[in-house]
Amino acid sequence: MTETFQFRLLAEDGRARRGEISMPRGTIRTPAFMPVGTAGTVKAMYPDQVRELGADIILGNTYHLMLRPGAERVARLGGLHEFARWPHPILTDSGGFQIMSLAALRKLKESGVTFRSHVDGQVHELSPERSIEIQGLLDSDIQMQLDECIRLPAEREEIERAMELSLRWAERSAAAFGEQPGKAMFGIVQGGDQPDLRIRSAERLSAMNLKGYAVGGLAVGEPQSVMLEMLDVTLPAMPHAKPRYLMGVGTPDDLLESVRRGIDMFDCVMPTRAGRHGLAYTRFGKLNLKNARHAEDSRPLDEQSDCSAARDYSRAYLHHLVKANEILGAMLLTWVNLSYYQFLMQGIRDAIEAGRYDDYVASVKEGWARGEA
Amino acid sequence: MTETFQFRLLAEDGRARRGEISMPRGTIRTPAFMPVGTAGTVKAMYPDQVRELGADIILGNTYHLMLRPGAERVARLGGLHEFARWPHPILTDSGGFQIMSLAALRKLKESGVTFRSHVDGQVHELSPERSIEIQGLLDSDIQMQLDECIRLPAEREEIERAMELSLRWAERSAAAFGEQPGKAMFGIVQGGDQPDLRIRSAERLSAMNLKGYAVGGLAVGEPQSVMLEMLDVTLPAMPHAKPRYLMGVGTPDDLLESVRRGIDMFDCVMPTRAGRHGLAYTRFGKLNLKNARHAEDSRPLDEQSDCSAARDYSRAYLHHLVKANEILGAMLLTWVNLSYYQFLMQGIRDAIEAGRYDDYVASVKEGWARGEA
Repeated sequence: MTETFQFRLLAEDGRARRGEISMPRGTIRTPAFMPVGTAGTVKAMYPDQVRELGADIILGNTYHLMLRPGAERVARLGGLHEFARWPHPILTDSGGFQIMSLAALRKLKESGVTFRSHVDGQVHELSPERSIEIQGLLDSDIQMQLDECIRLPAEREEIERAMELSLRWAERSAAAFGEQPGKAMFGIVQGGDQPDLRIRSAERLSAMNLKGYAVGGLAVGEPQSVMLEMLDVTLPAMPHAKPRYLMGVGTPDDLLESVRRGIDMFDCVMPTRAGRHGLAYTRFGKLNLKNARHAEDSRPLDEQSDCSAARDYSRAYLHHLVKANEILGAMLLTWVNLSYYQFLMQGIRDAIEAGRYDDYVASVKEGWARGEA
Repeated sequence: MTETFQFRLLAEDGRARRGEISMPRGTIRTPAFMPVGTAGTVKAMYPDQVRELGADIILGNTYHLMLRPGAERVARLGGLHEFARWPHPILTDSGGFQIMSLAALRKLKESGVTFRSHVDGQVHELSPERSIEIQGLLDSDIQMQLDECIRLPAEREEIERAMELSLRWAERSAAAFGEQPGKAMFGIVQGGDQPDLRIRSAERLSAMNLKGYAVGGLAVGEPQSVMLEMLDVTLPAMPHAKPRYLMGVGTPDDLLESVRRGIDMFDCVMPTRAGRHGLAYTRFGKLNLKNARHAEDSRPLDEQSDCSAARDYSRAYLHHLVKANEILGAMLLTWVNLSYYQFLMQGIRDAIEAGRYDDYVASVKEGWARGEA
């Protein structure tokens, strides 16, 4: 822990990087996976459990929290860390992405975006300045600029317009954030699936000298190959000495391939959402516990796992819980999945340190392909 | 733990009893509250947590388990203890109560009852013999006779008919259960709100020399005063040296008043169900966390509680989780409630041992009435 936000690169293996973000609330070992705590809770998990699995940081969603319980209320209650019993670092997104995917009647202007809450129908306005204000009220450690993220495929003109708007919003967000030595505000590279727009966005953001940078607008409908191609062209245009965060990504395979290209941070609802839908991620690949073939299988998901949920409960029992819609099913499978994601990140970090990242990736993928033989 | 089912009375205070049931899978300190694990899970709780709160035994529902995953399947998987990761004693009900409340197209005959599953619409038949067979497949430690439980108010004739049928089914259940030294089958006193029928039922069952006895058909629509009056007349007609189990009861106040009259065991969905509906039971009474007055209350539910959920999370956060329908809200409030119920039972047991049960009841009720002042 340090009094100011700092990023150190500890090791590199090809383009893969092993690093460390230090800030007053704690140290984040990178590459890092941030479990998503949408509305102030990593769904179906006690906060202590999330920590014990090895998470150094979680993500909170500005959109959800501004609507309920409200940013000013969270501030009066001592901030999001106190509210949600997570004293460690928190990253918040800007709210932009969820407005586009969840809110009704949204209207985008140069100044910001107005929308109707999906919770109670009330109209809200979010500008770059208000987003930073809200993230400040939440007392977020790593804050994100407001951007416009569009789905792919999209017309080049539309991608360019949104990218340019996001750059102007980055300037305004940075000005609103000002100087906060113990915290950081990250800019977000946009540009869809257009290499030159991605590069332009990355270069213009780099010139702003922010404390960290995200790649946004990927994993929004395009094939994985397009996403990786965008990382291939974008990352070299981003500052080497700053943390790089790939937003909303992804599958275990996405993580391996993105780290290989130089990504340091990830967040994704996949392990938590999958856990609520009967899916388990393990060393042997992805399993659908709803499948009848598990109904009388007395084996655990992974008898060698450090995670009790993966080691101590039979597949037959998990199958039953999922079929019967029992809360314990969501609890156990979310636990299994977050445990596997953190296990994977630990393996990634160890492999980069040891200079054998490619071997590690090959052996992990072999495990998935082999299944359980 | 003992190789045979045994009940010892350790202390008495008035009609309140402090005892101990010993059986191969463990010892049950009485008066005992049994958390309800309907479909092989105490909802929203890890089994280890349930144990840590002080539960010596949990209840499983024959109706739910016979439909899903099926008794034969549970047996093939090693029994309910192995399946649900609960190596301690389990009591199963007979299935009769849920058939009456949940199943469709039910038809009662002398031989048993046919019904349509609420899960998949399939027709099933449950007889006293089949109920005992199912409970044996589940490997239940304390099994219950099939009975007919009717709602109150009801006509005396109807109550008497159901009570007499239940007595005949008790005989058949006992015959089907046979000799199983490490396990027990309990008979169930019926008779609605008719004192003479209750007494007749209790006496006829006593003559069967079963290992334990339940009082059924209470808390089914009648006021608490009627329930307690029925206990007053029924319990003296039941064997003193056998455990007495009041089925499906109740509120914390019901527990205090029933123990005072000589009840040793309880089960109830109240703490778990209430936890999923935003209600908390504490030393200060019952709280509805949905209520807006908790929205900015940074106090925990009970800062002196041994239960982390009651001690470490603010009411404001619990309010938020409940309003946002977050799984963690159900997890924390179920934990709070089961913790309070077990805390209450420990207090009850200590008070009886110390010969100050009436004082204890008075002080607990004073706490509820005073609130938090």
